[in-house]
Amino acid sequence: MSEIRLDPYISRYATRTQGMTASEIRALFAVANRPEVVSLAGGMPYVGALDHDAVAEVTRRVIAEDGNVALQYGGGQGHDGLREQLVEVMAAEGISGHADDLVVTTGGQQGLDLLGKLFLDPGDVVLAEGPSYVGAIGAFSAYEAEIRHVDMDEDGLIPARLGEHLERLRSEGRRAKFLYTVPNHQNPAGCSLSVARREEIAALCESEDLLIIEDNPYGLLDFKAELRTSFRELAPERTIYIGTLSKVFSSGIRVGWVAAAGPIRDKLVLLKEGADLCQSNLTQLVAERWLRTQAWQEQIATFRELYRERCDAMLAELSAEMPAEATWTVPTGGFFVWLALPDGVDARELLAKALNARVAYVPGGAFYADGGGQHHARLSFCYPPPDRIREGVRRLGEVLRTELELRSAIYGG
Amino acid sequence: MSEIRLDPYISRYATRTQGMTASEIRALFAVANRPEVVSLAGGMPYVGALDHDAVAEVTRRVIAEDGNVALQYGGGQGHDGLREQLVEVMAAEGISGHADDLVVTTGGQQGLDLLGKLFLDPGDVVLAEGPSYVGAIGAFSAYEAEIRHVDMDEDGLIPARLGEHLERLRSEGRRAKFLYTVPNHQNPAGCSLSVARREEIAALCESEDLLIIEDNPYGLLDFKAELRTSFRELAPERTIYIGTLSKVFSSGIRVGWVAAAGPIRDKLVLLKEGADLCQSNLTQLVAERWLRTQAWQEQIATFRELYRERCDAMLAELSAEMPAEATWTVPTGGFFVWLALPDGVDARELLAKALNARVAYVPGGAFYADGGGQHHARLSFCYPPPDRIREGVRRLGEVLRTELELRSAIYGG
Repeated sequence: MSEIRLDPYISRYATRTQGMTASEIRALFAVANRPEVVSLAGGMPYVGALDHDAVAEVTRRVIAEDGNVALQYGGGQGHDGLREQLVEVMAAEGISGHADDLVVTTGGQQGLDLLGKLFLDPGDVVLAEGPSYVGAIGAFSAYEAEIRHVDMDEDGLIPARLGEHLERLRSEGRRAKFLYTVPNHQNPAGCSLSVARREEIAALCESEDLLIIEDNPYGLLDFKAELRTSFRELAPERTIYIGTLSKVFSSGIRVGWVAAAGPIRDKLVLLKEGADLCQSNLTQLVAERWLRTQAWQEQIATFRELYRERCDAMLAELSAEMPAEATWTVPTGGFFVWLALPDGVDARELLAKALNARVAYVPGGAFYADGGGQHHARLSFCYPPPDRIREGVRRLGEVLRTELELRSAIYGG
Repeated sequence: MSEIRLDPYISRYATRTQGMTASEIRALFAVANRPEVVSLAGGMPYVGALDHDAVAEVTRRVIAEDGNVALQYGGGQGHDGLREQLVEVMAAEGISGHADDLVVTTGGQQGLDLLGKLFLDPGDVVLAEGPSYVGAIGAFSAYEAEIRHVDMDEDGLIPARLGEHLERLRSEGRRAKFLYTVPNHQNPAGCSLSVARREEIAALCESEDLLIIEDNPYGLLDFKAELRTSFRELAPERTIYIGTLSKVFSSGIRVGWVAAAGPIRDKLVLLKEGADLCQSNLTQLVAERWLRTQAWQEQIATFRELYRERCDAMLAELSAEMPAEATWTVPTGGFFVWLALPDGVDARELLAKALNARVAYVPGGAFYADGGGQHHARLSFCYPPPDRIREGVRRLGEVLRTELELRSAIYGG
């Protein structure tokens, strides 16, 4: 497009789109994926733990036996049989649902985008944990929502802080459209919201007439196989639930779903059809047959143990290698540890030095819409094997110690 | 959501979304899919003509040999190897391209949605053929664009009419953001734009500084295997090209692409990541291996012959069965015939009677954003076998003749 001035053509939406953060993260991953670098940056599930031959055979049979469906367009809501199986996946977590209420989406991310499209006008307020999932921040910001972060501690989002936000909104004569929360093994914090707090928050949302978007990619990956009552159970009328098979089966099939009743579901189907007509029938039928014919709960137990072992390796090495001023969360499950750097150390500035020392992480700023997270880093333990994780944490420890020595030399102890 | 008043939460976008047309079309297909009904309504490719065992084996090998990639997240732009193969598909039509300039999307529809998001603000003008593809009208309307239809004849969009639109826009002090066109075997009209007109239109767009979105799902399905110079060749700086494998391989894998250089491509990658992170690696690798290892051009020749035979069956039966006042297009390829009903017959009103007589079509109004198309119907010949097509056209002919007799009895000859 060398001869065309493009600016006059670009929409307000696209002018605004997350440019900075997204391209920075892309550049980061380009470096992080070099073989000599230990990447604690990515959120990729370890799909090497799947039985590839079993998946291959399931897939071959889907096409050989049901090719006219698998290779054809499907409906906007998603394949019936798959939706019935996804209800079973929710049931494994004690979450009730009905196949009619599910809309299949391209991973959880498309659910976030469609819900943003469904609910958000410019200037609308969204409440979310601080820190929160980068993909949700991007999706909601793109619709010009104002994201206000509610502080967390090791038991998750703090209800009193949510109350303060609601109070402030009332005093401004405004209200939030919804609360977005990842209650289980949160990305990036690794914490889970306590059940007592869930009840308190559900009651608050009830009294303020606030919708809840409950995003639950990691719920089945609790290291003690513990289950916590979902918002969908506590406040069924006002909770929109997002699930995905990306972390419990395969991220490469891009199968997620939104559970919501009545008019919200109907609107989501229309938005899904407008966005891409329909989900791939091939990947839907693969997921359906996997869940119907294979020991998927055992597969999840395998993943759970694998991630627990990697998490333990990371935590042990952090204890051994981090300077005393650093602190970190102890994950209940999932993929991530949230590291608080020693006072004054900026996570983005430190990243260049870390990459130089051949270790990568995601700077905390990516998980805030408001400039927060400067002194935090997300470390993931999902993908590299334990030895590499230990090596990565050792390298990071050295970078941090050098940094602190340098600061001490310049500014004094 | 029985207790919650939803209206205050819904965004302007979602309030507006194509409700009417989309849900009407859905209701239509629910009836059209009954086995006793001959559906000339759908646009489903006849995937029964694919060698399912070959696709199954390609897919099995993708997972068995490359499972760690196939089952994992991919990049936002799409898989490198697939993009290289898609360049070959374009080359088979004499269209040049480079893998770096392609962004893989969920079919052509996601390309339309992302381009709408990229370019359109409320009130922007889009020029499109009249009639035009229903999915494009939906996608652009949702961003509150004003779609102005440019008349067509059997040689496609009429350049003089385009000139008149541009003139009128100038006199209003406005300009269009882009021209959207399906130049080959158009959906729904079945016509192709002549090469002379392409040159004229490209020159007009050049002098008016208008972008061109060239949507080409059916180009390789020309009944005489004829190729026509693409806008991408005629006006490479200002053309954004949309391709898809839905009609030449499988619609169930949902693999499409947008070809656009430089900053547009970069923006599209960001929008794609925001919409759903990335395309399924599994379906991308299946498409890549299919194109790399199988005789895909022969497969397309098979499709082409199959559709030509079905089109011939439809045209012969239309000649035999339609009342003299009806006219129709003679497709150059693709899936559709555009039928002009006798004067005064409303296609939507007639549909109830047609369904009663067990034949379905899509009323022409779906293909206009401005209330046009009332007296037209889209008839598709892509899916039912020739015998069923003939039976469907016979039923429709009878419905029309009864309608005309009734009118004549009421209003006089």
